Amino acid sequence: MLSEFSLIERYFSQPAAAFPSTEHGPKATLGIGDDCALLAAKRGQHLAISTDMLVSGRHFFPDVSPWALGYKALAVNLSDLAAMGAKPRAFTLALSMPKADESWLEAFSEGLFHIAKQYGCELIGGDTTGGPHVSISITIFGDVPAARALRRDAARPGDDIWVSGVLGGARAGLGIRRGEWSMKNPADEAIAIKALEQPEPRVALGIALRGIAHAALDLSDGLAGDLLHILKRSKVRATVNIDQVPRSGVIAALPPAAQVRSILAGGDDYELCFTAPANARAKIDRIGKAQKVLLTRIGTIEGLAASLAPASLAPSGTPNDLPAIDWRDNTGPVSFLDTGFDHFHAD
Amino acid sequence: MLSEFSLIERYFSQPAAAFPSTEHGPKATLGIGDDCALLAAKRGQHLAISTDMLVSGRHFFPDVSPWALGYKALAVNLSDLAAMGAKPRAFTLALSMPKADESWLEAFSEGLFHIAKQYGCELIGGDTTGGPHVSISITIFGDVPAARALRRDAARPGDDIWVSGVLGGARAGLGIRRGEWSMKNPADEAIAIKALEQPEPRVALGIALRGIAHAALDLSDGLAGDLLHILKRSKVRATVNIDQVPRSGVIAALPPAAQVRSILAGGDDYELCFTAPANARAKIDRIGKAQKVLLTRIGTIEGLAASLAPASLAPSGTPNDLPAIDWRDNTGPVSFLDTGFDHFHAD
Repeated sequence: MLSEFSLIERYFSQPAAAFPSTEHGPKATLGIGDDCALLAAKRGQHLAISTDMLVSGRHFFPDVSPWALGYKALAVNLSDLAAMGAKPRAFTLALSMPKADESWLEAFSEGLFHIAKQYGCELIGGDTTGGPHVSISITIFGDVPAARALRRDAARPGDDIWVSGVLGGARAGLGIRRGEWSMKNPADEAIAIKALEQPEPRVALGIALRGIAHAALDLSDGLAGDLLHILKRSKVRATVNIDQVPRSGVIAALPPAAQVRSILAGGDDYELCFTAPANARAKIDRIGKAQKVLLTRIGTIEGLAASLAPASLAPSGTPNDLPAIDWRDNTGPVSFLDTGFDHFHAD
Repeated sequence: MLSEFSLIERYFSQPAAAFPSTEHGPKATLGIGDDCALLAAKRGQHLAISTDMLVSGRHFFPDVSPWALGYKALAVNLSDLAAMGAKPRAFTLALSMPKADESWLEAFSEGLFHIAKQYGCELIGGDTTGGPHVSISITIFGDVPAARALRRDAARPGDDIWVSGVLGGARAGLGIRRGEWSMKNPADEAIAIKALEQPEPRVALGIALRGIAHAALDLSDGLAGDLLHILKRSKVRATVNIDQVPRSGVIAALPPAAQVRSILAGGDDYELCFTAPANARAKIDRIGKAQKVLLTRIGTIEGLAASLAPASLAPSGTPNDLPAIDWRDNTGPVSFLDTGFDHFHAD
């Protein structure tokens, strides 16, 4: 068995040429192999930092393709940078696994570096260790001017609510991988699996939305739960029209209720959900066209009822002085509570 | 069971007052609760970044005190900053555990924040998730002027080799915790357990050595293996006198061979090993006195034999044109090979 040190050196050291200098100048001053990596400060930029842990059997199937796992482990972290409007720069990787399986490591690192190179994000440090199962922790770093970062607490009453891409595809992929669902058309299965295993982080979109969108986050757990994070931190409510939420074509054959669950609580789509003032609609449409990304308005941010006034019940059935989502469709209010989605969650 | 989001909020959100502004100004601009934390760049400083993963059953006993685990998880990362000469600033935490055990989490977070506050290091982001066992991944951030960072590749022929503190205590603590060793004096047992479970990261020492020491690292795996990292990256050899390596008093009753194994291959002491030119001896002695830290010279850095000359065997038995350690004691060369320590390693 290779020593831990050798593992890092062998599979995770990339030639410097793989990560050429950018307009920021050279990237990490000192990478893998010392006690710490050194990252230069950039004038006028803050460092956006996010960390995630993926555990075998919980976040991925133990027999998942290691290439796809390496790809997705970094993709979900890049998605956090996208949700902040930050430009990817570097990441660290901590990896535990039962034994040093060289063919697994080779495929994992290929998937990881495939997307790392695509987004110019350099591995600058890591730790590999033995452990009873595979777990992966990535911490990612990006650059963003602090005043233009897309925060969760910046939604304002009157804002439109937007989502990128289509939702529900990753949930369909999960159903297929679990052996619960199958599709008549093999091409649809491939699309669903790709949505689950190779999500495309919306990095360019996040950067383009700096100074235009107010609040943003990425959809990892599902729209119903994730949008609530924006509402709670911004102290606002939302009305969302379910019929306007763009659906992946691969779920069109499901019963209507299953379609709704997939798009609102399926999770793992890693699209952006953001809010922006109505006067930004033309700009946002232009960004979507330029980047060839579907951008759809699905609802509106509303203020809380003043807390001094007696709270009445909103269409969702929740007191109207608390952050919550009032769901509707093209015919009127829909009566389920947000919490009703919990047991549909992919976890 | 609490949701993952609530876990972070409940146990790992600290009031801002716990981490007052320092001479650097306010710390993180945006902490836990958004997609990313934002960390301001500091003029003239690089960000030193290190990441570690600790896995139950491998790096700690499953029944370890959660307070001690929280303390040590951050201590070992602070030690990486110390080894770089970096001033601690912030960290992220990713934690997986089988179920949300609130009393465990409370004690873990108390130990974690005890040392975090001691070193002014703020938790700025995290991820908690379910998983079959406890694993902990911390990424830590510190500030250091790049030109004064203590790198592993900066040792030069003629440098003295120094270590801080005493070695072997943590290995004794491991023996006690494993039930393999016991000590006549309960006070010695307490010292050994503390060396294992509550190592003191040498942060102030690392900062004081900026611009004085050439190379440095922290002793996590044991002197014999760790010093080799400096030698390989600096392309030099070392001669080390085993009789000069300072030993923890708690191993004095062990057979001589077990003492040597404990100090050279025991690991987990988290003392600093550094190299410095001979003309820095007086300065280093003053630093040790001022900080009340024992600093001991244990050997000398030597150049490799020129690779064009025919390599001959050094006292260690290794070719003298390759990085290696020539061990000696007060009577002369000691004949074991570096690799002979591998099977004594605490892993």
